[in-house]
Amino acid sequence: MALDLSSFFYPESIAILGASNKEGKTGHTLFKNIIEGGYQGEVFPVNPRGGTILGHKAYQSLSEIEGEVDLALFIIPAKFVPQAMKEAGEKGVKGAIIISGGFREAGNQALEDELVEIAREYDIRLVGPNCQGINFTGSKLCASWPLITSQGSIAIISQSGTIGASVAIKAEEENCGISGFVSLGNRVDVDESDLMEFFAMDEKTQVIVLYLEGVANGQKFIETAKRVTREKPVLVLKGGRTELGQLAAESHTKSMAGKDAVFEGACRQAGITRLREFNDLYLWAKILGSSMKRGGSKLLIITSSGGSGILSTDIAVENGMTMAKMSEETLEALKERLPDYCIFGNPLDLTGDTDAKRFEEAALLAAEDPEVDLFLFIFGDPIPGAFEVVEGLKEKISQEILVCYWGGGEVEYEETLKFQRANIPVLSTPEEAAKAAVALAHGERGEFHGEEE
Amino acid sequence: MALDLSSFFYPESIAILGASNKEGKTGHTLFKNIIEGGYQGEVFPVNPRGGTILGHKAYQSLSEIEGEVDLALFIIPAKFVPQAMKEAGEKGVKGAIIISGGFREAGNQALEDELVEIAREYDIRLVGPNCQGINFTGSKLCASWPLITSQGSIAIISQSGTIGASVAIKAEEENCGISGFVSLGNRVDVDESDLMEFFAMDEKTQVIVLYLEGVANGQKFIETAKRVTREKPVLVLKGGRTELGQLAAESHTKSMAGKDAVFEGACRQAGITRLREFNDLYLWAKILGSSMKRGGSKLLIITSSGGSGILSTDIAVENGMTMAKMSEETLEALKERLPDYCIFGNPLDLTGDTDAKRFEEAALLAAEDPEVDLFLFIFGDPIPGAFEVVEGLKEKISQEILVCYWGGGEVEYEETLKFQRANIPVLSTPEEAAKAAVALAHGERGEFHGEEE
Repeated sequence: MALDLSSFFYPESIAILGASNKEGKTGHTLFKNIIEGGYQGEVFPVNPRGGTILGHKAYQSLSEIEGEVDLALFIIPAKFVPQAMKEAGEKGVKGAIIISGGFREAGNQALEDELVEIAREYDIRLVGPNCQGINFTGSKLCASWPLITSQGSIAIISQSGTIGASVAIKAEEENCGISGFVSLGNRVDVDESDLMEFFAMDEKTQVIVLYLEGVANGQKFIETAKRVTREKPVLVLKGGRTELGQLAAESHTKSMAGKDAVFEGACRQAGITRLREFNDLYLWAKILGSSMKRGGSKLLIITSSGGSGILSTDIAVENGMTMAKMSEETLEALKERLPDYCIFGNPLDLTGDTDAKRFEEAALLAAEDPEVDLFLFIFGDPIPGAFEVVEGLKEKISQEILVCYWGGGEVEYEETLKFQRANIPVLSTPEEAAKAAVALAHGERGEFHGEEE
Repeated sequence: MALDLSSFFYPESIAILGASNKEGKTGHTLFKNIIEGGYQGEVFPVNPRGGTILGHKAYQSLSEIEGEVDLALFIIPAKFVPQAMKEAGEKGVKGAIIISGGFREAGNQALEDELVEIAREYDIRLVGPNCQGINFTGSKLCASWPLITSQGSIAIISQSGTIGASVAIKAEEENCGISGFVSLGNRVDVDESDLMEFFAMDEKTQVIVLYLEGVANGQKFIETAKRVTREKPVLVLKGGRTELGQLAAESHTKSMAGKDAVFEGACRQAGITRLREFNDLYLWAKILGSSMKRGGSKLLIITSSGGSGILSTDIAVENGMTMAKMSEETLEALKERLPDYCIFGNPLDLTGDTDAKRFEEAALLAAEDPEVDLFLFIFGDPIPGAFEVVEGLKEKISQEILVCYWGGGEVEYEETLKFQRANIPVLSTPEEAAKAAVALAHGERGEFHGEEE
């Protein structure tokens, strides 16, 4: 049975314990982000001093609030949390996000145990403690920081606030957005498996991204992930692959990771895609979170730069892609249409004097060839009009087009912005572009599935 | 004997054959870049139409020019090049850069042979044909594109114009600059070995970056590199590691690369550092081209973000770095000075509420520990004043500090700019930062040396 997490994601009202008028304080940032993020429910700042906070009447305690409170945020010193949790219980609060640190991670196991016991008694679900909150763009609820508001399809579940937030920041910068971000903290109750289950059901979410240092419950993790990966791809970056990294992980989140090979095996069994670096994690999330349709491993690279095409080819081949082999007919048609100094192979090198139009001509001919599943266009020079050509081709050919733009100075900057505004992913090196092709090909429905039981 | 290449890098006068007033034409861009780049010698645009080009008197042929001409640029159709080369010979030109394509790479071997024969007869040195020219910031000579003017210590030698230019563009964007960029083209005469030798002697150059698809002369390459790597690090990215990549390389630059393992062996023998991706190539160039002193493999990571510290640790350890083990005394001193919720290990986790000052306090204490060779600071939150703290520490401690700034939104942007203006490298993910540490440690004098003969 999946946990009901609706109080965290669809609360009708929120109490913010520790809300503050003082800039720089977490209780200020967080309350401000909830308001500026556009949350539509009721908000009740709570602070013993009372008065008004950011223009809202402040309550001296939870019990003073007249209406109902679905969700409570705790941004008060650890020692005050248990008492406040009792009040929350009396008030009928259903979910609590405890931002405050100072529990198990700081050696205060007893305080953490006390808190958990109270929450259980009152049937309050907990996220945290020692976490960076929740951002759920589906409810315009940014109970976290930084303020990220662009809606997208990437769901982030992270044992590190910074790493989770960094995925969200990049997604906002490149205009692909997120569906949600949950910072796990010490995860005394709600864990990564519960959240995977939630985001599997969330309509906006297309891809689930995990940063973990260890799993809360191995059996539950594998079983949940097996179900979830049948619906949506799950990507994971794990901190603590090495012994020293793991030692640090144990200090950081008290995660007992066990041997890395065990985790590797669990991912394979559960159909989870494991990535080795943050940039790869983000790249895969961006591609699988885009509107590009997945699948197709036979790649045709069309490039203005010979060297760039070769770098892409190496990475694509090293990662199991097939380089499409065009038929003689297609090659003849290309030779008839394009300048004779082009290099007619795969990569198809249009050479440095090409304009965007030549990419279009080449793609229209090559798209007829059943050998070609997927295009990669490398604009390796300042080629204006690249965006318009790619946008126009979408209507005319059935294959997807991955776009790499580099070495283009001012023109690159302008074209990249146009692509991002239209939510078409742009890759910034030939190698990144090849990895994006791998992600798209790997994403064929079926491949993410866990092993059959 | 090293070739005398001074006519390419320190010409007193340049003739530009094919200079043009028409925007978008290579003969326009290139002449404009020479002028706007600040070249101080004489320039003679040559165009059969005469008149003036970009405000300079244009000559209808080389023979019309009254003064001496050291260097000639050819941006005219391939078929006119041999005749013009004869005129250049009669005029006493010493070096020629042939931008024009349409020779061997387009199947016109005979035309290329003819050109080479004429150049030999007149003792003219050739760069190209089919290349993107030369940029040498030491003479403010940008006979290439794009226009890159920031002086630095990275020398680029490339068989791909786009890939070479991309290193230069990134170096300019991040304000680290280049010493030079030479695009090899079909390299009928001057090759990568000659240029390595030149940049080994060039005072400004600290690191030499190669993009190759094959070497012109294996024996010469190994012997030259062995000498050069005793003086300066040489980094190489090779296109065509895979069979299909190599096939493409053969079409692109007619390079016969041979087995990848042979190239790998040659690099090892010659002391060349081989990198696998463009981003790694640039990262290493940026670090070894900076003013940071090399060496020291015992790393202490100080971070505001636990997870980020762990990601760095994994990559550092996986690449042979040692994590510094601080003495009990150092740890005690740190515990006395810092908040008790910090995590006292390596990584030293100052936690998310840290300010820049806490980094300074921690580093001043840890710097006393002889176990610590090198610092990595990870600012994983919006921490203002990071730059001032790092800048100030330079005077107070002997170890170098690598800086990673991420997850910091607006504040990150501002701080990063300050670092870049001061020419302090900033790394943008924890993994990139760890790789930078590896580059710096690997760069110890001695390690780049080729094998003894």
